Amino acid sequence: MKISEILGKRYKEKPNDAKLKSHELLLRGGYIRPVASGIFSVLLPGRKILQKIENIVRQEINNVGGQEVEMPLVQPKELWQESGRFEAINEELVRLKDRNEHDMVLAMTHEEAAVALARTEATSYKDYPFSIYQFAKKFRDEARPRGGLIRVREFTMKDAYSFHRDQKSLNETYADYAKAYARIFARVGIPEVISVKSDSGMMGGNVSHEYMLLTPSGEDTIITCSNCSYRANKEVAKAVIEHKNTDVDILPLEKVHTPGTKTIEEVAKFLDVDASKIIKTVVYKPTAHDDRTIIVMLRGDREVNENKLAKVILSTPEFADDSVFEASNIIPGFASGYKARKARIIADESLNNERNLIAGANEQDYHFKNFNISRDIPDAEFFDVSIVQDGDRCPECGAPIKINRGIEVGNIFQLGDKYTKTMGMTYTNENGALQIPIMGCYGIGIGRLMASVAEVKNDARGPIWPISIAPWEVSLTALSPKATDDATAKSAQKIYDEMQRAGIDVLLDDRNTSAGEKFADIDLLGIPLQFVISQRTLEQGKAEWKVRATGEKGLIELDKVTSMAQEWILKEKQKISRDADIVQNESVE
Amino acid sequence: MKISEILGKRYKEKPNDAKLKSHELLLRGGYIRPVASGIFSVLLPGRKILQKIENIVRQEINNVGGQEVEMPLVQPKELWQESGRFEAINEELVRLKDRNEHDMVLAMTHEEAAVALARTEATSYKDYPFSIYQFAKKFRDEARPRGGLIRVREFTMKDAYSFHRDQKSLNETYADYAKAYARIFARVGIPEVISVKSDSGMMGGNVSHEYMLLTPSGEDTIITCSNCSYRANKEVAKAVIEHKNTDVDILPLEKVHTPGTKTIEEVAKFLDVDASKIIKTVVYKPTAHDDRTIIVMLRGDREVNENKLAKVILSTPEFADDSVFEASNIIPGFASGYKARKARIIADESLNNERNLIAGANEQDYHFKNFNISRDIPDAEFFDVSIVQDGDRCPECGAPIKINRGIEVGNIFQLGDKYTKTMGMTYTNENGALQIPIMGCYGIGIGRLMASVAEVKNDARGPIWPISIAPWEVSLTALSPKATDDATAKSAQKIYDEMQRAGIDVLLDDRNTSAGEKFADIDLLGIPLQFVISQRTLEQGKAEWKVRATGEKGLIELDKVTSMAQEWILKEKQKISRDADIVQNESVE
Repeated sequence: MKISEILGKRYKEKPNDAKLKSHELLLRGGYIRPVASGIFSVLLPGRKILQKIENIVRQEINNVGGQEVEMPLVQPKELWQESGRFEAINEELVRLKDRNEHDMVLAMTHEEAAVALARTEATSYKDYPFSIYQFAKKFRDEARPRGGLIRVREFTMKDAYSFHRDQKSLNETYADYAKAYARIFARVGIPEVISVKSDSGMMGGNVSHEYMLLTPSGEDTIITCSNCSYRANKEVAKAVIEHKNTDVDILPLEKVHTPGTKTIEEVAKFLDVDASKIIKTVVYKPTAHDDRTIIVMLRGDREVNENKLAKVILSTPEFADDSVFEASNIIPGFASGYKARKARIIADESLNNERNLIAGANEQDYHFKNFNISRDIPDAEFFDVSIVQDGDRCPECGAPIKINRGIEVGNIFQLGDKYTKTMGMTYTNENGALQIPIMGCYGIGIGRLMASVAEVKNDARGPIWPISIAPWEVSLTALSPKATDDATAKSAQKIYDEMQRAGIDVLLDDRNTSAGEKFADIDLLGIPLQFVISQRTLEQGKAEWKVRATGEKGLIELDKVTSMAQEWILKEKQKISRDADIVQNESVE
Repeated sequence: MKISEILGKRYKEKPNDAKLKSHELLLRGGYIRPVASGIFSVLLPGRKILQKIENIVRQEINNVGGQEVEMPLVQPKELWQESGRFEAINEELVRLKDRNEHDMVLAMTHEEAAVALARTEATSYKDYPFSIYQFAKKFRDEARPRGGLIRVREFTMKDAYSFHRDQKSLNETYADYAKAYARIFARVGIPEVISVKSDSGMMGGNVSHEYMLLTPSGEDTIITCSNCSYRANKEVAKAVIEHKNTDVDILPLEKVHTPGTKTIEEVAKFLDVDASKIIKTVVYKPTAHDDRTIIVMLRGDREVNENKLAKVILSTPEFADDSVFEASNIIPGFASGYKARKARIIADESLNNERNLIAGANEQDYHFKNFNISRDIPDAEFFDVSIVQDGDRCPECGAPIKINRGIEVGNIFQLGDKYTKTMGMTYTNENGALQIPIMGCYGIGIGRLMASVAEVKNDARGPIWPISIAPWEVSLTALSPKATDDATAKSAQKIYDEMQRAGIDVLLDDRNTSAGEKFADIDLLGIPLQFVISQRTLEQGKAEWKVRATGEKGLIELDKVTSMAQEWILKEKQKISRDADIVQNESVE
C-alpha cells in the first residue's frame, strides 16, 4: 500500500473531545471517525488492525474447538421474553417494530439466539459438549458512551457459547477458553492482561472472570495483592480489614449530647475522634421477600458495597425513605440499629471485635460512646459488605492489597442452566431421560481490544502497534524534495516491490511532502519497523532503520533491507508466540 | 473437523416452506436456520462457505484498489435526511428511537455513510480517485422475504463506493469493478453469471449493471439475444416489435356497435379478430408537474412497462379514477385517446405504422374499426413503453430475443453526483476551486451468493459446492459397523492427520452409523472429493474415491490418498482460476 492512497487525514492537534489516549490517537491517525454518539466508522488502518485481531481470535477459538456460526442482530421479542430479559433489561436494549408491527430488538448479546439455535440441534447426549462462536455486530444503547472505541453503542464482539451435560465438562471448556484468552491477549501484544474474579451481573450464573488490562484510564477497579496472585474486581473483592479498636477493654455504654452532628465528619469533629472510631449506619428499604428494614452498620472510614449487600439480602438495595425510618423507629442523622423495630441488622466485618465506638442513639441530637455491637445489638449478623480500600489486606496471604484501574478486554462466564432452563432446552441422556444442559459464555470486544492496545502501547508520537496487529509491519520512506521521481524514490520503490513479493505487509511513503510530516505520519500509523532512504544514506548505498518501540536505529545495505525486515518480523513474531505459550500456563486459577 | 462435532442436524425430508432448491438444501444440510421471517442464523458449514466467499471477494476488490473500511448499521436520521432518502424510502427503511429519543435508522445500504466518511477526508484533488468497501450487516424490511437466503431482511453485503473527479475516472473504476465481479463469480464457481443493463431505481444515477445468474427460479426477468451479446433486464430492455398490420392501405374510420365488450378479449371475440388488431388503452392520473391525463395506447397483445412509462412522464404512473375519466371525457371500457380532453396521448412503438386497428370510440358500447393513430390522433407521441415479450427482436442485431429468469447476484451503479451534491461533498481542484466529486457503488450480497451457487449447482442428493467455496474440500469416511475403533477407522484417522498436516480442509466421518446415512450426509455437505475406506477396500490396501460433481470414481492406494487429494484440489483450483481469467476479459461492454 502507498500512503498517498489511504483515505483519512492524519493530524497533530489533540481532538477536543478525546479524553483517553487511545481515542485521541485513533482519531489523529485516521483510524476511526465518529458517526454519532458511541457509533463509529473505521478507516483502512483501523480495519486492517481489526482484521488481524479477528484472525488471531479465530485461530485460538478454533483451537479450543469453537465452531464459527452467525446469529442475527435483529431478533424477535419472543426470544427475549423466553429468557425474561425483554422485561429485565432497561433502555440499553433497543426495541423497535418492523413493518408488520412486530416487536423486535437489537441484540446486545446472543445467549438467547445461541440457545434457540442449539436447542433444535443438540437433542441427544451424543451432541455434547460443543461450543459455537461468532464475530457479530451488537448494539447496546449505553447511557454514556466514552473514550472512542472503549465504550460504544454499536460494536463487534467475538462471543462464544458452550453447552455441557455436567459441571465437569463446563469446567474443562471454561479452562480451555481461559487458556485461549490468555494466548489471544498475549498475541495481540498485551500479555500483561490479568484475569480477575468478577460479578456476573445481568448475565446470571456464578463463576465468572474478567480480563483486565491495568491502566490508570480504565473505568473498572481491580484489587491485586502486592505479594501473591490474588486479584478480583472491586465489586467482589473480599475486604480483609486492618482492625483499629480491638485491643481495649469493653467500657459501659454512655449517651452523649451531640447537637446537630449528623454526618460522620461532623461527629468526628465534635467529639475530636477519627472516623474509624465511629459507626456509620445506612438504612435500606425492606425487600420483596423480607418485610424487615435493612440496617447496615460499618466502620466510619468505610463505604457500603451494595453489590455484596445485594447478595446478602438477595435483592437490589434501595435507600430507605421517611416511612421506613418511622416504621423502624430510626432517627435519621442519629441512626443506628440500636432498638430499631422490625429491622434486620447487618454489621460489616469492619466492626467485628471493634470496641468502644461511637454510634447513633436513635434519639434526636444524641450518640452513644463505648458502643459494642456484640453487647449492644446481639442479634446483628456479620457479613463482608464494605468496599475494599487502601490499607486492606489480601484475603489469601495477608499482604497489603493494591488498588488498580483497568479496562475490561474480555470476560468468561459459567451460566449454569439460567438460559437453557428458562428457554426449555433439553437433550435425551443415555437412558432416554430428558436433561437440561448447562452453558458457558465467552466474550471479547474486537474494537475495544484495538483501542486498549493503543491505550497502553503509545508514546507522544502515536501508537506503538505490536507486530502481530500493526496495520503495516514495515514502512519505507523516501526522503527528498521530489520524492516521486528521484533516486531515493526509485530505490524505495524497488525495495517496496521486493518486500511485497516476500509477503511483507509494507507501507510506502511516496508523497512529495516534508520529512517532518512523513516521520509524524509513519509514527501515527505506529509501524513497528521503519526504513528511511535519504540522499545521504543513498550515497553510502544504505537505508536507515528504526524500531518504533525501542527507538533503536542503524544503517543497512540497500540489498539487505528486505531480508533484514523478514528476519526482524520473524523474531518479533516468535517473541510474541513465546509470550503466548508462557501466559497460557498461568491462566485462571 | 470431525462430522460428529458439527452442530446441526441433517435430514432427508423436504421442508414444507422451502420453495427454492437452495432454501431446501441449506436447511436440510444444516447450513442455516430461521430465526424470524427473513432472518437467519448460520451454522458452521454455512459460515465456512461464507468466509471463503468473503476471502475471494476481499482479494478481488483489494486487487482493484478497494480499501476495506467499516461503517455502522445504526445511523442517525440526519444522514438520511441529507440525501433525501429518509423521506423517500418507505417502510423498507427501519426507523427507531434511541434512549434519548433520537431518531435513528438501520442502514439498508451505505451511500450516506460513505459520503459522510469520505467528505471530511478527501478534500483535495490529490486524494482522488479512491474506493472504499466493507463487509457489513444491513437490514431491509422486505415486505415478502423469500427463498431462504435469496431475499432476506438482515444480510451481509460487500458494498463498495468509489469517488472521482470526472466521468473518465469513474468509467475506469467502473470497468475495474466489472472485471473484479466477473472474476469473483467465476471464482465462487458460477462463471455463467452475465451482466445486464439495469434500471437504477432508488439508487439514482444513470448507468448500472446487474449481475444475473440465469435459473428458472429467479425472480428477475432478463432479456438476452439468441444471436449477439445483447442482454438487459426486462425493466429496461428495448422492445423491437414484429409489426403485424403495416402492409395494408389505410381505410376510412368506421364506428361499430360493440355492446358490453369492455376487455381486449371480449372485443376480439365479438369482432372475431386477433388481440394484435386491437388497441389497448390504459389511463393514468395527471402528474404533479403536468395536469394532463396520461393516456397510453398500445397493441392489444402487449403490456405497459410502467418503469419505461415513468421515465417518459417523469413520475411514477398511477391508474386513473372516475374523476380523471370524467375530466378527460373518457368512457371506461370503450376508452381511447380519440377526442379525449386535456390529455397527453402516449402511443407505444408497437402501434407505429400499424394500420386499420380496432380502438375504443370513447362512447358507450362503441368501438372504431380502421383506426390509424397517425391519422386519428395526430398529436400522439410515440415512445417504447411496452414490456418486451416473446417474439420481439434484438435491438442490436434483429435476431429473436430470449426471455430468461435470473437471480441478481451483484450490481454496479454509476451514481454521478446524486449523493455528493445533496450531501455537500466537495474538494479543491488544482486552481483552488471547489468541485463536487462523482461516485460509483458496487454491491454483492454474500449470503445470497452462497444460496445462488446452491440453486444452480446441485443434484437430488444435495449441493455440489465448487472447490473454492466448499465447506470442506475433501471427506474421509470409514465404513464399518464399529467405525470408531476398527482398522478402517484407524486407517481413516491416519490419513486425516496426514491431510491436516498437508493443509487440506478435510472432514472425517467418525460416526458409528449406517453407510447410507454417511453417504447421504457427505453429499448433503456437498464435499467435492470424497474418500471411503471399507473393509473391502482395506483388504486391497486401498480407498475408494468419488468426485461429487461428475460421479467419477475409482480406487487409490492408501498411501497415495493425500497426494492424490492435493493434486486434484490444485487442478480444480487452476481450472477455476482459468475460468476467472477468461470471464474477466468478457466483462461489461
